[in-house]
Amino acid sequence: MSTVLILNGPNLNLLGTREPAIYGATTLADVEVMCRDEAAKHGLTADFRQSNHEGVLVDWLHEAGRAFAAGTLKGVVFNAGAYTHTSLALADAVRGTGVPMIEVHITNVHAREAVRHHSFLSPVARGIIVGLGPMGYALAIAAVAALPAKA
Amino acid sequence: MSTVLILNGPNLNLLGTREPAIYGATTLADVEVMCRDEAAKHGLTADFRQSNHEGVLVDWLHEAGRAFAAGTLKGVVFNAGAYTHTSLALADAVRGTGVPMIEVHITNVHAREAVRHHSFLSPVARGIIVGLGPMGYALAIAAVAALPAKA
Amino acid sequence: MSTVLILNGPNLNLLGTREPAIYGATTLADVEVMCRDEAAKHGLTADFRQSNHEGVLVDWLHEAGRAFAAGTLKGVVFNAGAYTHTSLALADAVRGTGVPMIEVHITNVHAREAVRHHSFLSPVARGIIVGLGPMGYALAIAAVAALPAKA
Amino acid sequence: MSTVLILNGPNLNLLGTREPAIYGATTLADVEVMCRDEAAKHGLTADFRQSNHEGVLVDWLHEAGRAFAAGTLKGVVFNAGAYTHTSLALADAVRGTGVPMIEVHITNVHAREAVRHHSFLSPVARGIIVGLGPMGYALAIAAVAALPAKA
Amino acid sequence: MSTVLILNGPNLNLLGTREPAIYGATTLADVEVMCRDEAAKHGLTADFRQSNHEGVLVDWLHEAGRAFAAGTLKGVVFNAGAYTHTSLALADAVRGTGVPMIEVHITNVHAREAVRHHSFLSPVARGIIVGLGPMGYALAIAAVAALPAKA
Amino acid sequence: MSTVLILNGPNLNLLGTREPAIYGATTLADVEVMCRDEAAKHGLTADFRQSNHEGVLVDWLHEAGRAFAAGTLKGVVFNAGAYTHTSLALADAVRGTGVPMIEVHITNVHAREAVRHHSFLSPVARGIIVGLGPMGYALAIAAVAALPAKA
Amino acid sequence: MSTVLILNGPNLNLLGTREPAIYGATTLADVEVMCRDEAAKHGLTADFRQSNHEGVLVDWLHEAGRAFAAGTLKGVVFNAGAYTHTSLALADAVRGTGVPMIEVHITNVHAREAVRHHSFLSPVARGIIVGLGPMGYALAIAAVAALPAKA
Amino acid sequence: MSTVLILNGPNLNLLGTREPAIYGATTLADVEVMCRDEAAKHGLTADFRQSNHEGVLVDWLHEAGRAFAAGTLKGVVFNAGAYTHTSLALADAVRGTGVPMIEVHITNVHAREAVRHHSFLSPVARGIIVGLGPMGYALAIAAVAALPAKA
Amino acid sequence: MSTVLILNGPNLNLLGTREPAIYGATTLADVEVMCRDEAAKHGLTADFRQSNHEGVLVDWLHEAGRAFAAGTLKGVVFNAGAYTHTSLALADAVRGTGVPMIEVHITNVHAREAVRHHSFLSPVARGIIVGLGPMGYALAIAAVAALPAKA
Amino acid sequence: MSTVLILNGPNLNLLGTREPAIYGATTLADVEVMCRDEAAKHGLTADFRQSNHEGVLVDWLHEAGRAFAAGTLKGVVFNAGAYTHTSLALADAVRGTGVPMIEVHITNVHAREAVRHHSFLSPVARGIIVGLGPMGYALAIAAVAALPAKA
Amino acid sequence: MSTVLILNGPNLNLLGTREPAIYGATTLADVEVMCRDEAAKHGLTADFRQSNHEGVLVDWLHEAGRAFAAGTLKGVVFNAGAYTHTSLALADAVRGTGVPMIEVHITNVHAREAVRHHSFLSPVARGIIVGLGPMGYALAIAAVAALPAKA
Amino acid sequence: MSTVLILNGPNLNLLGTREPAIYGATTLADVEVMCRDEAAKHGLTADFRQSNHEGVLVDWLHEAGRAFAAGTLKGVVFNAGAYTHTSLALADAVRGTGVPMIEVHITNVHAREAVRHHSFLSPVARGIIVGLGPMGYALAIAAVAALPAKA
Repeated sequence: MSTVLILNGPNLNLLGTREPAIYGATTLADVEVMCRDEAAKHGLTADFRQSNHEGVLVDWLHEAGRAFAAGTLKGVVFNAGAYTHTSLALADAVRGTGVPMIEVHITNVHAREAVRHHSFLSPVARGIIVGLGPMGYALAIAAVAALPAKA
Repeated sequence: MSTVLILNGPNLNLLGTREPAIYGATTLADVEVMCRDEAAKHGLTADFRQSNHEGVLVDWLHEAGRAFAAGTLKGVVFNAGAYTHTSLALADAVRGTGVPMIEVHITNVHAREAVRHHSFLSPVARGIIVGLGPMGYALAIAAVAALPAKA
Repeated sequence: MSTVLILNGPNLNLLGTREPAIYGATTLADVEVMCRDEAAKHGLTADFRQSNHEGVLVDWLHEAGRAFAAGTLKGVVFNAGAYTHTSLALADAVRGTGVPMIEVHITNVHAREAVRHHSFLSPVARGIIVGLGPMGYALAIAAVAALPAKA
Repeated sequence: MSTVLILNGPNLNLLGTREPAIYGATTLADVEVMCRDEAAKHGLTADFRQSNHEGVLVDWLHEAGRAFAAGTLKGVVFNAGAYTHTSLALADAVRGTGVPMIEVHITNVHAREAVRHHSFLSPVARGIIVGLGPMGYALAIAAVAALPAKA
Repeated sequence: MSTVLILNGPNLNLLGTREPAIYGATTLADVEVMCRDEAAKHGLTADFRQSNHEGVLVDWLHEAGRAFAAGTLKGVVFNAGAYTHTSLALADAVRGTGVPMIEVHITNVHAREAVRHHSFLSPVARGIIVGLGPMGYALAIAAVAALPAKA
Repeated sequence: MSTVLILNGPNLNLLGTREPAIYGATTLADVEVMCRDEAAKHGLTADFRQSNHEGVLVDWLHEAGRAFAAGTLKGVVFNAGAYTHTSLALADAVRGTGVPMIEVHITNVHAREAVRHHSFLSPVARGIIVGLGPMGYALAIAAVAALPAKA
Repeated sequence: MSTVLILNGPNLNLLGTREPAIYGATTLADVEVMCRDEAAKHGLTADFRQSNHEGVLVDWLHEAGRAFAAGTLKGVVFNAGAYTHTSLALADAVRGTGVPMIEVHITNVHAREAVRHHSFLSPVARGIIVGLGPMGYALAIAAVAALPAKA
Repeated sequence: MSTVLILNGPNLNLLGTREPAIYGATTLADVEVMCRDEAAKHGLTADFRQSNHEGVLVDWLHEAGRAFAAGTLKGVVFNAGAYTHTSLALADAVRGTGVPMIEVHITNVHAREAVRHHSFLSPVARGIIVGLGPMGYALAIAAVAALPAKA
Repeated sequence: MSTVLILNGPNLNLLGTREPAIYGATTLADVEVMCRDEAAKHGLTADFRQSNHEGVLVDWLHEAGRAFAAGTLKGVVFNAGAYTHTSLALADAVRGTGVPMIEVHITNVHAREAVRHHSFLSPVARGIIVGLGPMGYALAIAAVAALPAKA
Repeated sequence: MSTVLILNGPNLNLLGTREPAIYGATTLADVEVMCRDEAAKHGLTADFRQSNHEGVLVDWLHEAGRAFAAGTLKGVVFNAGAYTHTSLALADAVRGTGVPMIEVHITNVHAREAVRHHSFLSPVARGIIVGLGPMGYALAIAAVAALPAKA
Repeated sequence: MSTVLILNGPNLNLLGTREPAIYGATTLADVEVMCRDEAAKHGLTADFRQSNHEGVLVDWLHEAGRAFAAGTLKGVVFNAGAYTHTSLALADAVRGTGVPMIEVHITNVHAREAVRHHSFLSPVARGIIVGLGPMGYALAIAAVAALPAKA
Repeated sequence: MSTVLILNGPNLNLLGTREPAIYGATTLADVEVMCRDEAAKHGLTADFRQSNHEGVLVDWLHEAGRAFAAGTLKGVVFNAGAYTHTSLALADAVRGTGVPMIEVHITNVHAREAVRHHSFLSPVARGIIVGLGPMGYALAIAAVAALPAKA
């Protein structure tokens, strides 16, 4: 049975406790439960992680690349938070490992400050889901589940 | 029983017959079938349309606004094609009617030419789904179905 | 007796029913009445129209150009809505027909998003009236009435 | 009985004597007469001034703010000339005093050099009237007269 | 026997009657005659149309695409007028149908305002002919006639 | 005993009476008292001035330069208001006289409109204190007091 | 008794030993002593840290957010070094935790290279102190001490 | 009998032997033959030259200017290669001599790198023919032949 | 006998006493003497003034315009200092009065900061002399003397 | 005997196993062997490291700075991968420690996406070697070996 | 006795015969005579040259550098025509040889197209004289004559 | 036995005699000797040339292209001086001939003025060596020697 890796970037551990007017009241633990349920619906196991460290996220993407190559990982759902807008290294890690990745943002980044309109990750993503709140994670897992088998 | 309106902009009637390397082999008729099926799963009726005329799309959004106000429409799924990148009028129609709208793009517009990176519609969308092929329509219908009831 | 043509662009048919915080509660029908009254004060007949179609607006400007050349039209009052900011074709229609045109905006476009700060129409307008609400139409009709007779 | 203050910025004292091809042959004294007449029609007294000094114009706006607060001033008609395009201080004076202000330009600034397309004053103006020649002052006075009573 | 489709965009119906200093005195009817003559020289039939509606032009390009696929159309000569500079949808229609298209401009757009220096159509054109007046249409028809047979 | 000159630019005389949501309720007279107290703590006399005239502020900086050269002035605390963002002449006056200057802004200019993010004065300031409200003046006076003796 | 957290970003551990012409001869250990003294004057305990790791700084801001919520931390003084200009994640951490933060820079960043003129942190800072050398830390601690009690 | 001068700029001597995927297999000698034939059809003699030296091309344009003034030259067909995009001197030579010039590019420069989208020559050209391969030279010669007689 | 007016803008009164490394040791009084001598050589009287007030400089240019119209002034030599780069009002005063003006800068502004590379005055100047130190005033007076008699 | 430190940034551990079309088939272990050999030729010991963490790379540069000051390190060869284009902190670490650094890129970054054309490190590098594949490391070690002895 | 070298760039040989509305009727031969006269007044010999070749102009500047080093040349007056705006090589030649150079333009380049507003030469010029017609050469020679003796 | 062509662009003949603070004291003749030695080490003959003429450099690259095609040239080392930043023609010559080229700069162009940060040549270079002084030529020759045999 295969895995879907859900990676969360900086400050997403604050979800639900701060700025609920923007991000809602759902906590990251709630999102994790929702992801496990959605993954199970598709016969996948959810591996759910969060880090505030860009380097750790690069390392995890490399780990995902190896798992994908070994056939134990179906794909990655990635909410990179602020690193979305500043990290070319994360984009290179996705491109370099070739792991299929769906980019997710809880809020509608295009309705916020200009700096959030550009994503380094989007050009290397298989798909992008924006502004649908925590439900975006579930839709992204469904999208990963629907990916064609690794050639 | 309520409706979901799926609007398609310019050139989407060519889907499946041209540039399959970019847009795939699915035709717009195939997408329509998929949308009807997905809508039915959520107890919604799909109203599926396409036009190459910006003004017609504005008119349809106004019609959607009236239906939404009357409680017969749940929301709009909108793939505006090239008008995404050039039409402020369509964005004003969404904003002006207040109809909930999910923006969809079949291809990953952020991996294409720079002119396709900016969307006039994104700031007024409830959610945005990009690059997931025709499946994006189904996910968007699911997102419309999950919208809270009109206040 | 001569005519003043008042043209309204996309979404102005929504006036008064949506976003009253921005556009006020006056409907386009109210504006039409006000325009007829003001035109009458100056011995002019108001021809009041609205369309969401850029091409229709171009056609109407051509019609206005012919009427102006025939001496039956005094001038045009034009609120092009969102097309103000995206349509070079409308500007070319004004320039190409030579019909005198006063540009009107109900809201203060310069206090809104940057995309609304640039107008394709302004360089070809005889005058521009911005931010004075529906009263702007009346002032524009007065300005048309005061135009010198066609040479 | 209330007052309307008409402020004129740098070089407007040259009106009518220089560059008549651009600005016309009307002198600033002619404009003053026209303004007094128009104000009288609306039961207002016109206080008409001109200065080439940015600081003096700021001082006069402060004076206007105090008169507006005291209920003796209905509003300001302001043609700031070149300071329109270079003075944030004048915009701050309008914003800071809260005095209602209608911006006027005799010529169509949007049909001239690019530096004249941006106005620091527009975002804080109640309305803007451009390109209608000296008649713009009269229309602006009418707009001031139509302002709702101070809350 | 095959066809060449000559499409004319917004305001080109005004040709010859307005702004002769810029566009010359030739009318669009004159251009049509010239095109029919030139097409005949190459054993082609000229299908000559004009519309002010972007959507109609998109529809016509789709029709051209079908005719090209059916082997009854040799190619398109396209003077999109102002839509040249604002319409990505027309470019997508050319790209999406794969119909060979020669872009024509009567005036030297590069010697006019900056907004006319960029063309959405040029990257998808087989050739571009600029500034040669109505003769440009004839040269473009010659270029269409010289296109290799459809593969 | 030495002096600290506190200069205030355009519209700062409005402090406390207008836009208290942005600038607070403290008046400029309150700030003056606070400055005199803080200066006294450091054995300095506060010379506190305000002008809406750019030229007057240039003149005062020249006067400060002479006093600094004569050893009777320790330094300048300068809140140039809107001139911060538009006046190269004030920056040249600081640079040209060599008088040590601490730039102060009551509000956080970097959290406001883009035009307030650039300061002509910052490159010639010894230090910059932003967003700390009237307390910023006191901290700036402390900074002036701590300046090394004039070489 | 409450705490003030002083955070130092990348390369600040080099202070005093390198580039003394720009940064002066004071070491970070000297700054720490100065901070402890200043904090003590205000009845605060200084918690002084430095890291070259963006992720560690994000973690520490989260820790600060929890301490602030628990009422044991008064505020943060933050010299983020080069991350000031490249890290949106740190700005999000400040915004997300709601901890009051005073931004400090030892040198006058506005008199240096253009890349140092923009700060991601400034829009979320309560105040900003620039160019006053190590004394800036002391003034920032005074500003933290003067913050109103947490609501 | 009159002459048409065909000038070729840098690297066009490589035509046909290098990068045939972009430039085709036709050599410059082939183009010369085609030009002589086309010129002869119009009763003109082709003077066909190539140089990699900007200064030589300027000199040749001056020579052309003198021949045009003397009535022995009908016009110039100019493919300036890379100098199109970097040489203001060549544009000045055309403008300064007043010789009628048709600009030609073999490839569609607007479908290539951005640096090739701007031409210094276009604003001073009588016409521009782009992307039609070597046939562009023939069309340009036809355009020269159709120029009105020198006034 | 006629006059040449030499106007000096902000901070030029500091000449010779500050920043001699940039501006040299010559004082403005020295420049005045040099100007009187040079004017005398050409049979002109030098009227030499300096002000730090933009409005005063506008007033003086108006005065010059009247004197030029009256035939008592030959022209203006204008070193506007920092206002060169920020004042559209001064440029409008020159343009509006029609007085011939030679722009002078003591230092080579093009070898200094970018903000000094653009001059509002240059487009309305008859000539511009830059970087030649105080000698630039003398050359400018010679240029004024050589101006053709007023038409 | 002295050391040369070779630092590798994010994703370089993937070398040889992914995207061989771009990066070639050489692994980082192969590069390490090549570096040890080249260093030995110059009597240097190669210390070869890789990290995906920006902070770790900053720390290592500080360590290098101390070793350079102690005379045990000759210089650094640095391939910072994606951090080249996003990290000012790494550049500050080089500048702050004063350690001589040669920047290396395996691929020709100037022939790739625009974001890779700018390097934060280049202004502080002693030399830059780009596009020569793994051989670039060897040339950089030779360049380090040739550096003059530390003053 | 020393020499002043007057260099003229591309198209200046056309002076007087073309575009007299812009450049006047004076020929380059007239300018040469004027230069010889002016040089003689200052005890200098004028060496007057023109070339359309950038490389020739670089060579001549090198020759000038050698003559300046040898003490036989006082300085260079340089009107580089269009190369002013496109040639970094000429600027490097001036900087590299250290020869004193006065930049001259006959017309007011700042009142013409934007491309003529930037000069590569200005930052390395000793002085710049613009818009004074052929008289500018004479003033520049006077400026060369007044240069201090070579150190 | 094969050849390596070393081309030097404008002003490099000045090397060693001017601006030694930037370029060092090594002359171009010294560099030639070093290049001959390095080439000999690799069994190559060095053909070393310099020209200030862009066209001559284009011609030489064409000659190199023919020699490379004939198998007598291994590759080109090219220091194009200022033409690096302004010449698209030289880049086209490299691309058009297909000759392998290594770009060299003696100084660190990225630490100098912005105009030197962009190279037209870099995208067509096999490798780029910057800032290593004359040694860069030797390293580039080594890189040419290591190129794979021509396919």
